[in-house]
Amino acid sequence: MEKKPLILVTNDDGIRAPGIRALIEVMRSLGKVIVVAPDRPQSGASHSITINVPLRLEKVVQLEDYEEYSCNGTPTDCVKLGIKAVMHCHPDLIVSGINHGSNASVNIIYSGTMAAVIEGCMAEIPSIGFSLLDYSMHADFKPSLPCIRKITEQVLKNGLPFGVCLNVNIPNVSSKEIRGIRVCQQAGGTWQEDFDERTDPHGRDYYWLKGIFVKIGDGHHTDEYLLENNYVSVVPVHTDMTAYEAIPQLKYMDTDA
Amino acid sequence: MEKKPLILVTNDDGIRAPGIRALIEVMRSLGKVIVVAPDRPQSGASHSITINVPLRLEKVVQLEDYEEYSCNGTPTDCVKLGIKAVMHCHPDLIVSGINHGSNASVNIIYSGTMAAVIEGCMAEIPSIGFSLLDYSMHADFKPSLPCIRKITEQVLKNGLPFGVCLNVNIPNVSSKEIRGIRVCQQAGGTWQEDFDERTDPHGRDYYWLKGIFVKIGDGHHTDEYLLENNYVSVVPVHTDMTAYEAIPQLKYMDTDA
Repeated sequence: MEKKPLILVTNDDGIRAPGIRALIEVMRSLGKVIVVAPDRPQSGASHSITINVPLRLEKVVQLEDYEEYSCNGTPTDCVKLGIKAVMHCHPDLIVSGINHGSNASVNIIYSGTMAAVIEGCMAEIPSIGFSLLDYSMHADFKPSLPCIRKITEQVLKNGLPFGVCLNVNIPNVSSKEIRGIRVCQQAGGTWQEDFDERTDPHGRDYYWLKGIFVKIGDGHHTDEYLLENNYVSVVPVHTDMTAYEAIPQLKYMDTDA
Repeated sequence: MEKKPLILVTNDDGIRAPGIRALIEVMRSLGKVIVVAPDRPQSGASHSITINVPLRLEKVVQLEDYEEYSCNGTPTDCVKLGIKAVMHCHPDLIVSGINHGSNASVNIIYSGTMAAVIEGCMAEIPSIGFSLLDYSMHADFKPSLPCIRKITEQVLKNGLPFGVCLNVNIPNVSSKEIRGIRVCQQAGGTWQEDFDERTDPHGRDYYWLKGIFVKIGDGHHTDEYLLENNYVSVVPVHTDMTAYEAIPQLKYMDTDA
């Protein structure tokens, strides 16, 4: 009998979020699963790590092919602890999500879901992040599941190119409306933000961030375009943030002391 | 008389760190300066944003060409608040640092200093992060200052290419030993990490992260190589994390429903 793949599951919406529950069900049908996830929502955690507070792990479930741990840290902490303190070995796959809300375009920069995936990638483990374009805690994850299973099976079979992980986003439509899967590039975009300025009952001012995402450019090969057209987008992601095309433009800065 | 440029200064080591004090001095000689920085160290904050807690700003200093605000949020929050709640306009420049420790190679992924810079870049403001390769709070920032001034003056004069910001790292050597400035690419690298597992006085286990950075590859055009050879490295950075070279390799995943 073939050995079951070992899969580490995490997220940034916290261990009780419906999104990770849906992802766990798919993964348990594909391998031995260990969940290490934050004990509370960590949206917007990005790639933050816990340096000043001791990290805690609590075992929540232990079955033969399934274990679950709750952690007081960030998604990145969960991946590091999952590998080094729980598994003591590299899993065959890391999956993160299903995020409640989009991680397409520049949302990847703020995303705790994708930070966990990038962390796995830096540890040279095939890693995939899944996000559904619905921020609601009552989101319907069912239409996502066949695509998630398909992409996961492909990665378990073929692996991923060295230094590359996947950012998968799923349109918030019915199963019938999903038109397929497309490998593509990250769209340009930005957040147009503002602050809600309020005064607390003690007379002190405070601020809440609010904003809307604005796409930049209208390329047909971007995640934003494909999602708008009801495709599942798959962006291969790496950790090299160099803007190579700008190097020649900036070479005038080179100087010798 | 020419109008003084408006400069927003932030960091991730907190408003009282020696690194930001050194940076403020250089910037005050170049323009009107507004500091909005975290009220405590935020190392490892990456691009995290504060969603669940109200943000607070405290005015600490008000002079004619100089203001200072302390904020309970992350470096990214500081940039957003600085632009939207303090300045109510776009500054001519955002600078972040001087970080106590390297942000070269993949350290950019974890860096709060560089997150602030990337946030400025997404708002289409010329933005530069400065880091000295010395983690100590007693680091000597003097040898860094001429390079920081030079790079800042160049960016104030010429701007930066669209969608590009700068990650500047400075070797921890004497002024005489700094050999010059080089525009270059981000080196490959990873952190080899482990956890120190301990038991608290109440019998509960906890973990501290510890690790060492390991460079991958030995290219002569990377920040790590140039820093080892006593050059100041300047990496142009963008927010597109797409691994373009992997798209053709993964096209087999494209499917129609």
